[in-house]
Amino acid sequence: MKVQFLQKIRQTNPLVHNLTNIVAANFSANGLLALGASPIMSACVEEMEEVPALSQAVVINIGTLMGKDLAAMRLAGQTANRLGLPVVLDPVGVGATSFRRATVEALLKDVQFSAIRGNAGELAVLAGADWQAKGVDAGQGSADLASIAQTVARKYQTIAVISGETDWLSDGKQTVSLHNGTPLFPKITASGCLLSAVCGAFLAVAEKGDYLAALIEACTAYAVAGELAAQGLQAYQHSQFMICLLDELAGLTPEAVEALARVNYV
Amino acid sequence: MKVQFLQKIRQTNPLVHNLTNIVAANFSANGLLALGASPIMSACVEEMEEVPALSQAVVINIGTLMGKDLAAMRLAGQTANRLGLPVVLDPVGVGATSFRRATVEALLKDVQFSAIRGNAGELAVLAGADWQAKGVDAGQGSADLASIAQTVARKYQTIAVISGETDWLSDGKQTVSLHNGTPLFPKITASGCLLSAVCGAFLAVAEKGDYLAALIEACTAYAVAGELAAQGLQAYQHSQFMICLLDELAGLTPEAVEALARVNYV
Amino acid sequence: MKVQFLQKIRQTNPLVHNLTNIVAANFSANGLLALGASPIMSACVEEMEEVPALSQAVVINIGTLMGKDLAAMRLAGQTANRLGLPVVLDPVGVGATSFRRATVEALLKDVQFSAIRGNAGELAVLAGADWQAKGVDAGQGSADLASIAQTVARKYQTIAVISGETDWLSDGKQTVSLHNGTPLFPKITASGCLLSAVCGAFLAVAEKGDYLAALIEACTAYAVAGELAAQGLQAYQHSQFMICLLDELAGLTPEAVEALARVNYV
Repeated sequence: MKVQFLQKIRQTNPLVHNLTNIVAANFSANGLLALGASPIMSACVEEMEEVPALSQAVVINIGTLMGKDLAAMRLAGQTANRLGLPVVLDPVGVGATSFRRATVEALLKDVQFSAIRGNAGELAVLAGADWQAKGVDAGQGSADLASIAQTVARKYQTIAVISGETDWLSDGKQTVSLHNGTPLFPKITASGCLLSAVCGAFLAVAEKGDYLAALIEACTAYAVAGELAAQGLQAYQHSQFMICLLDELAGLTPEAVEALARVNYV
Repeated sequence: MKVQFLQKIRQTNPLVHNLTNIVAANFSANGLLALGASPIMSACVEEMEEVPALSQAVVINIGTLMGKDLAAMRLAGQTANRLGLPVVLDPVGVGATSFRRATVEALLKDVQFSAIRGNAGELAVLAGADWQAKGVDAGQGSADLASIAQTVARKYQTIAVISGETDWLSDGKQTVSLHNGTPLFPKITASGCLLSAVCGAFLAVAEKGDYLAALIEACTAYAVAGELAAQGLQAYQHSQFMICLLDELAGLTPEAVEALARVNYV
Repeated sequence: MKVQFLQKIRQTNPLVHNLTNIVAANFSANGLLALGASPIMSACVEEMEEVPALSQAVVINIGTLMGKDLAAMRLAGQTANRLGLPVVLDPVGVGATSFRRATVEALLKDVQFSAIRGNAGELAVLAGADWQAKGVDAGQGSADLASIAQTVARKYQTIAVISGETDWLSDGKQTVSLHNGTPLFPKITASGCLLSAVCGAFLAVAEKGDYLAALIEACTAYAVAGELAAQGLQAYQHSQFMICLLDELAGLTPEAVEALARVNYV
């Protein structure tokens, strides 16, 4: 794997517009800063045309969605589409309630997403696959993750990114599994939300034809930063991991990612 | 003291539904994950029947209450009551404004709380006792804390949990004082909010007849984690304490809690 | 420089009322606690007369502004004015959108601010100066920062506080540059938001005639805490810096501030 986008993020410091939740807002902003991008966190409907227009990518996360938020999310996404900006959807806990399902369906109808990133439970819902999610956590099920990724990619003409012990990415034609990571990731809240923001930063510096490559690099870089952060930590040091993860994102080198990447093209 | 609920949390990973504030959201979610529970943080009125129905406990915290939030809090509490789930109230700064008092009165009228956890100033207001709170901080007063706990427990048919240098718990019949802790707790924001969430996690794995025992264990376990976290820290290392507290919650053993517990049955 | 306000904060623990954003809420509350002040974070319009009345200063930050927030911000500011309390404006990203400009103009029309603290890009907008901000970041421009500070101070009869590699303060007559700090400050989110809160805490313990002196001390103390926090850290340790900054605020002595202060009266 040839790392090519990480350096561009550090060189160009893309502005990444995040509509996100009250749990992840601080962590995602600090994670983007660590990576070398600039965060802007507004979700105010009155500025959902101007803020995307300043930005190089838009990331829409429904984590602590309120009824009023749909209008802002839709407008931000449509503005991004109109401007040709990459736009990422993080359908947090989409299977948990009918309100989340309806919101995500409305967004998927009105916005063309460059990528949809979630855990297995979330993307299984979008694929219509058999799965038992647990609140906003992944849960478990019998369906095949590669199939889920392919189904979501084709159904929504997007790139599906399933995060977990193994990550699965598909644009509907090419499917890839990524094998980096650490068991500490699910021990901290918002580690998935930050990954969605990181995906936004990588797409911000990529050409459209390179979006799949950029997302593979995004997920691999993030997982490698996690591996490096976990080194020397005990299994119970969740919160130290959270701090070290951000610092490893800041210190991450292309060489380290290339040396540690474990990418399988299916 | 025989520790019995902590292990059940780790074994069953109960889903704890938190309606909480923008200050505590990240910290409470990470604290629940550290303890072994799963957090879900929605406060969106549209899903306040479905999210409690997925959960094993509901925690309602009025920390950064907005006018629109009462409807969601009431519905979540009523759903929990209907389903027989434990439900905890954290009446943050209830004495500070007439709006907070009115909101808490409305909640107490419409929802039967399994526990009400707050600082001395907050529970003094609910007991109608003489006390001078300071914003959302405990403040000081002349009233007897054991009496305040008993009064709140009887008035609202609940278990009152007063946190502070000494914790006081009462179900109206039995009253208990807990003597673990560290002066670093009030130096970090949301340490009370997280304790309310932790109380929810312990109630989630307890039978109704064991709620007082579960809350005694919750408060003791949390305070012991704080004691362990404070070891080796300087008095000014508030923020390191915040990190270490979460990690000690993750690493906490029943044996450590039993060895260090200082519980007095009045 | 004679440090005189820091000790008063520790002695009197002023209550500082913050209307702030979902990114900065936790960090600002913990920073105020570290400094020795008490935070209260409500932005609920129903209590914007009572909460300022309990407090010794009000800080209004438009970071993740929603449409409904203007009414609460205006009422909190007007209450502070009526009570003679210091009130600080942090016009986060004011140049980014017309909605932010309109909101800040409405606030500046209806509220008399004791201080306006922002980065160069934000205060350049208020001064009408030539500047290219970048989202909520400072950006760059050709205008002279001392002039911008003076213009804002005179135009709004306030004290302008421009934060950056060099800080510039002006009350329209006296202008001061401050030369403490570390390149790690812009690497963490909400470091400006916390400084605005810190300014509120220093104003809370000062007489009106001493506001400029209090703000000089606030900015210097904060920057010195940052310098101390950065000692022994690597450039990529953004997140460790965030933790250490809070701890150094808690441990900061008047002697350290006096020894390290680099203040230039222009």
